[in-house]
Amino acid sequence: MNQPTHITVPIIGHVHTPFVEKFGVPRQPNLVDVEGVIEFVPPYDQPAAFEGLEGFSHLWLIWQFHQNRELKSLTKPDDSSATKLAPTPESFRAQIRPPRLGGNEKIGVFASRSMYRPAPLGLSAVKLDRIEVVDGRVRLHIIGPDLVDGTPLIDLKPYIAYSDAISTAVSGFAVEAPEVHPVYWTRAALWQKHQLISLGVLSNHQLPLIEGLLALDPRPAYQDDALRDYGMSYDRVNVRFGVQSGEIWIKELTAR
Amino acid sequence: MNQPTHITVPIIGHVHTPFVEKFGVPRQPNLVDVEGVIEFVPPYDQPAAFEGLEGFSHLWLIWQFHQNRELKSLTKPDDSSATKLAPTPESFRAQIRPPRLGGNEKIGVFASRSMYRPAPLGLSAVKLDRIEVVDGRVRLHIIGPDLVDGTPLIDLKPYIAYSDAISTAVSGFAVEAPEVHPVYWTRAALWQKHQLISLGVLSNHQLPLIEGLLALDPRPAYQDDALRDYGMSYDRVNVRFGVQSGEIWIKELTAR
Repeated sequence: MNQPTHITVPIIGHVHTPFVEKFGVPRQPNLVDVEGVIEFVPPYDQPAAFEGLEGFSHLWLIWQFHQNRELKSLTKPDDSSATKLAPTPESFRAQIRPPRLGGNEKIGVFASRSMYRPAPLGLSAVKLDRIEVVDGRVRLHIIGPDLVDGTPLIDLKPYIAYSDAISTAVSGFAVEAPEVHPVYWTRAALWQKHQLISLGVLSNHQLPLIEGLLALDPRPAYQDDALRDYGMSYDRVNVRFGVQSGEIWIKELTAR
Repeated sequence: MNQPTHITVPIIGHVHTPFVEKFGVPRQPNLVDVEGVIEFVPPYDQPAAFEGLEGFSHLWLIWQFHQNRELKSLTKPDDSSATKLAPTPESFRAQIRPPRLGGNEKIGVFASRSMYRPAPLGLSAVKLDRIEVVDGRVRLHIIGPDLVDGTPLIDLKPYIAYSDAISTAVSGFAVEAPEVHPVYWTRAALWQKHQLISLGVLSNHQLPLIEGLLALDPRPAYQDDALRDYGMSYDRVNVRFGVQSGEIWIKELTAR
């Protein structure tokens, strides 16, 4: 008897976040109180499907690493079935270089949360802020997503504390939350910040979020170049910053 | 442009547990210290892919609800591609009756961990006991799986305490771990137990596990019939039991 080798799962919705690109996205969820909205594909958007969810404070999201380069190349643009192909056993790479280990040391892909894994699925616990119904369609407002804008959602489950929250768990090389660096603004960036706020491109409540994201030092760990500037996009702004002696300096803030 | 509506993910292995059938499987992982073994499909079984995993105490398993009745009917036995079809939007049912609510009250499928969901994926945190390599192939020994024997595994991730363990999470109707009932043996069952142990069908360390599973009262919540007996299979034995005034009575123990 032929054993199935793959399963096909539907995309039930998309997660909208202020993360325009992968650079700047925290490496794990809930490190910064970034806001996101989940919009569902019909028929998964009907309010009845969410009845009872309001009693839960947190959710699990199972989502697709859709910005995975290998997967992109596997997607045929003329594919009328519009189904992404799965990575093949032939393309399997057993080891990856996690950014937390400086990008030099290799570890097994199953010892990591890397996107380059057989099933390109991510797993994130986020806070449920509120459930909104617009024109009969559900929109979930969430806090803390570590996802790029437009990420396809595969499943959504309530977080059940008594089985999911294992506070005694030992977590190998990723045991500690990442270091938080001090963030400073140059005079020029401060002035641009005020301009963008008065123009309505940036809002005041986004400032601590942008600072919080930069405080995690979004650079790959193997890049520690005090002379180099880096760019991060967040919602409607571009941020240019540098890092010197562990301090993050915001140098420029412009509209995207 | 056509948006993809589905993704295809590989089955990377299978989880072997003493749970011959769904009846008796705890409703969440880690309630009973049942042992399981994960065997991987090549090339996902190579030791390099697991390097570094030994530093983690717990794992996330993302697995397929393969005993889902609807999915079974969607699998064509003559399908040479051996790929299971995904549930269609047309077959989507927005609400389910969770056993914890007595089987009468309905809630939204996304407020539950029910198997009858768009993507038939389960999520379980289990303890990593040890990593074994047999003939160059990895076998993971785990503790606490809430899975039927042979469950297809889709992904395996390390449990990262600082982002996954949200001890303050509020969990709606499932906030408390299930009640633990006292378990008693009838004289006949005690005698059969000794027989089966001396025959080597049952081992002493399995006894507290069988008692632990029965203590969770595996019956559907809407069946509270003191006159009725129930059967549960565990590894190589069948257990017949009844429930009276909240007490579990083991009445018969036979070899499967």
